[in-house]
Amino acid sequence: MYQTEKLSNKDFITELRILINSQDEASIRLLMEETHFADIAEIMEELTTQEAIYLFDALDPDQSSEVLLELDEDLREKILHHLTPKEIAEELDELSSDDAADIISELPFAKKQEVINEIEDAEFAKDIVDLLRYDEDTAGGLMAKELIKVNQNLTVFACVRELRRQAQNVDKVHAIYVVDDQDKLLGRLALSDLLTTSLRTPIKDLYLGDMQYVHVDTEDIEVGHMMQKYDLEAVPVVDDLGRLVGRITIDDIVDVIREEADKDYQLAAGITGDVEADDGLLEMTKARLPWLVTALIGGFIAVSISRTYEDAMEQHVKLLFFVPLIVAMAGNVGVQSSAIIVQGIANGTLSDNTWGRLLKELSLSFLNGIILSAILFFGARLVFGDTSLIATTLAISLMAVMMFASLIGTLVPIMLNKFDIDPALATGPFITTSNDILGIIIYFNIARLIIGF
Amino acid sequence: MYQTEKLSNKDFITELRILINSQDEASIRLLMEETHFADIAEIMEELTTQEAIYLFDALDPDQSSEVLLELDEDLREKILHHLTPKEIAEELDELSSDDAADIISELPFAKKQEVINEIEDAEFAKDIVDLLRYDEDTAGGLMAKELIKVNQNLTVFACVRELRRQAQNVDKVHAIYVVDDQDKLLGRLALSDLLTTSLRTPIKDLYLGDMQYVHVDTEDIEVGHMMQKYDLEAVPVVDDLGRLVGRITIDDIVDVIREEADKDYQLAAGITGDVEADDGLLEMTKARLPWLVTALIGGFIAVSISRTYEDAMEQHVKLLFFVPLIVAMAGNVGVQSSAIIVQGIANGTLSDNTWGRLLKELSLSFLNGIILSAILFFGARLVFGDTSLIATTLAISLMAVMMFASLIGTLVPIMLNKFDIDPALATGPFITTSNDILGIIIYFNIARLIIGF
Repeated sequence: MYQTEKLSNKDFITELRILINSQDEASIRLLMEETHFADIAEIMEELTTQEAIYLFDALDPDQSSEVLLELDEDLREKILHHLTPKEIAEELDELSSDDAADIISELPFAKKQEVINEIEDAEFAKDIVDLLRYDEDTAGGLMAKELIKVNQNLTVFACVRELRRQAQNVDKVHAIYVVDDQDKLLGRLALSDLLTTSLRTPIKDLYLGDMQYVHVDTEDIEVGHMMQKYDLEAVPVVDDLGRLVGRITIDDIVDVIREEADKDYQLAAGITGDVEADDGLLEMTKARLPWLVTALIGGFIAVSISRTYEDAMEQHVKLLFFVPLIVAMAGNVGVQSSAIIVQGIANGTLSDNTWGRLLKELSLSFLNGIILSAILFFGARLVFGDTSLIATTLAISLMAVMMFASLIGTLVPIMLNKFDIDPALATGPFITTSNDILGIIIYFNIARLIIGF
Repeated sequence: MYQTEKLSNKDFITELRILINSQDEASIRLLMEETHFADIAEIMEELTTQEAIYLFDALDPDQSSEVLLELDEDLREKILHHLTPKEIAEELDELSSDDAADIISELPFAKKQEVINEIEDAEFAKDIVDLLRYDEDTAGGLMAKELIKVNQNLTVFACVRELRRQAQNVDKVHAIYVVDDQDKLLGRLALSDLLTTSLRTPIKDLYLGDMQYVHVDTEDIEVGHMMQKYDLEAVPVVDDLGRLVGRITIDDIVDVIREEADKDYQLAAGITGDVEADDGLLEMTKARLPWLVTALIGGFIAVSISRTYEDAMEQHVKLLFFVPLIVAMAGNVGVQSSAIIVQGIANGTLSDNTWGRLLKELSLSFLNGIILSAILFFGARLVFGDTSLIATTLAISLMAVMMFASLIGTLVPIMLNKFDIDPALATGPFITTSNDILGIIIYFNIARLIIGF
């Protein structure tokens, strides 16, 4: 029995490397038998590709397929590349249909077909081919074909016998689904009802009809929201005809929820695509450079606009020193407003009342703006000894800039969402940059009005 | 049977409001019986407090406790305030021990004791008092006391009888835990083994010892990582003596994972504390103003530093126009670097190799920096017609600023994490502001070297 602690990875890996280099397959297998497949996968990420492949080949077949599933996509690709279609088919045989389909979908087109042909269990191969049809971001792409279902016309007695037969293929039984002759989903059976009712009772008198289900085309995020909201551990999936075609379990949804939250955070930080800390340099550049170029172009626009005030500014250099402060505050306020909206949309907790939302953000900015403008006014007067004209310009500009920034920060994600564009795009560099430009325009115009140039 | 679709909330709520205002309790109860408790909770958030309380009182007792649990903290507080200790105790009686403890922990101190005294089931009251001892961010604070356990000295026959008895108190059976006479956790039973083995077999010959467990003091986030990594749907919790004291199920962990990701995102956006889109104005101000004040002070420092160059700048006003661009780029790069590190730390996917990490971020900034500096150089020359001295200053400054920004963006969260401070604090306004200051210092000094003033 083992508690999760940080593996003392270094010593363990050193020992393992020695075994790998001396090609001591028996000792490796013995050592790995004591290790959880998720830990083996983590260890393999620390090895060189060659060492990882050697280790993988040395694993017990019971473990290797689970390890394959846990690996990072990059390393899995290398290992799959090194295996023959027949070997891959054997690995898949140990997995459930959804996991097997996920792995096959990563293979090059030609190899996909070869692997499917090598799968011995015809039913399993058919299930996988079925699953490959669905978009990976939908309920169909997430579901497994393995589930327990019984026909409504069976008696309790026949049902229990049927359950015993089916349960061999299903790892975890979350629910027993009831279908009609056309396989249409009707409801579910409570295990307790099954155990306490007369054996001759027909299932159709026993099943519960009040259950949640999703359609194969339902988006994965939506399935996640639903399972969270209703605290479901599994949900059945139906096709256009209402037929039961699969089920989704909570462990798959945990990954979806986590990835969605990570993606929003990365977008807010100006990183597109799902990159991780250990991805390659080129992938990382691709994920970040476009944002930086956008920000640079935004910066150019801001410089162009402020340079139209060049003559005036030569007389009022002091004003220029405050530009970074004003635009930074605009950026911060905009990001704060948009983050709350983006998260509200992602979690489904945002109410439909756009105007109320906007009013709230504006009030908030007004409240914060009064305090911050006062600090800025007295700061400019006392710290920098600026004239009260300059201090007034700064205070009013900050106030105006904050109000506009929260207006943009609130409306842009809501509007993007209405047009079905990911609202998380609006946060991060995009909002910061557009608020920079807006901030400069507001600031210089207020300065012109107050100081006069 | 119902598929999740967006409730056509408005019509439904209008109808409901009419029933509430005409005090038609019977119709309300009938309407609500068809509605899932999670949906009722959502509907209540849309009503006025008075309407919500009326609706709550009208609910069937079977539903009301589940609805209470699903409500937002603010509204729950109002409803609890309106209930007597005895009524609260009756609501709690329908819940599992962890949920009941969560609700009690939100009560004012005096009422807590009164409610506990009103709970009829002494065992249940004791469980709740036990649970209240634990910090809410630990395994102890997350776990429920309801679980299925059997003594290793029982036979399969006695065990099955014991299971039937215990199963009445436990909603979902994820595992059967095996303990010794001192209640120490030994392992778990596979249901299939129980069904296929002779009834006289002692449990101690049957149980599986290879299982994960956590300690009551393990942090909730760590429990989440573990359950995700090992795909667990439930995990047992032990105390200092190794005794089985509770279990944590995946649905509680889903919330932990989601909240953690949300918190990181909010910190990156400059919002502290767990606020939601529908929180009050004062809570929102408290969550945002401190960051904005910090950013403003950072802005002041940046202004102070640049004003030491005031005389020189009067000769080179053109340089000042580019300050917002340079600092914005520093901010963007810093946030990109830190977001990847913060996420890597949060997901446990960051390797221990700090120097390798740093080298990677620096290479990335170098790569991006060359491209962006070239754009900036030619932009300044061609678009703005600046001298090549200014264009060179800009290009070199951008390069240097980007390298420093990624250095800070990488090291600050790693160091904070080493000192056990939440690394997410480092992202957002903090990194942006410090990079603003650093960017200005670098820019003016490079300008002085190249242009000479």
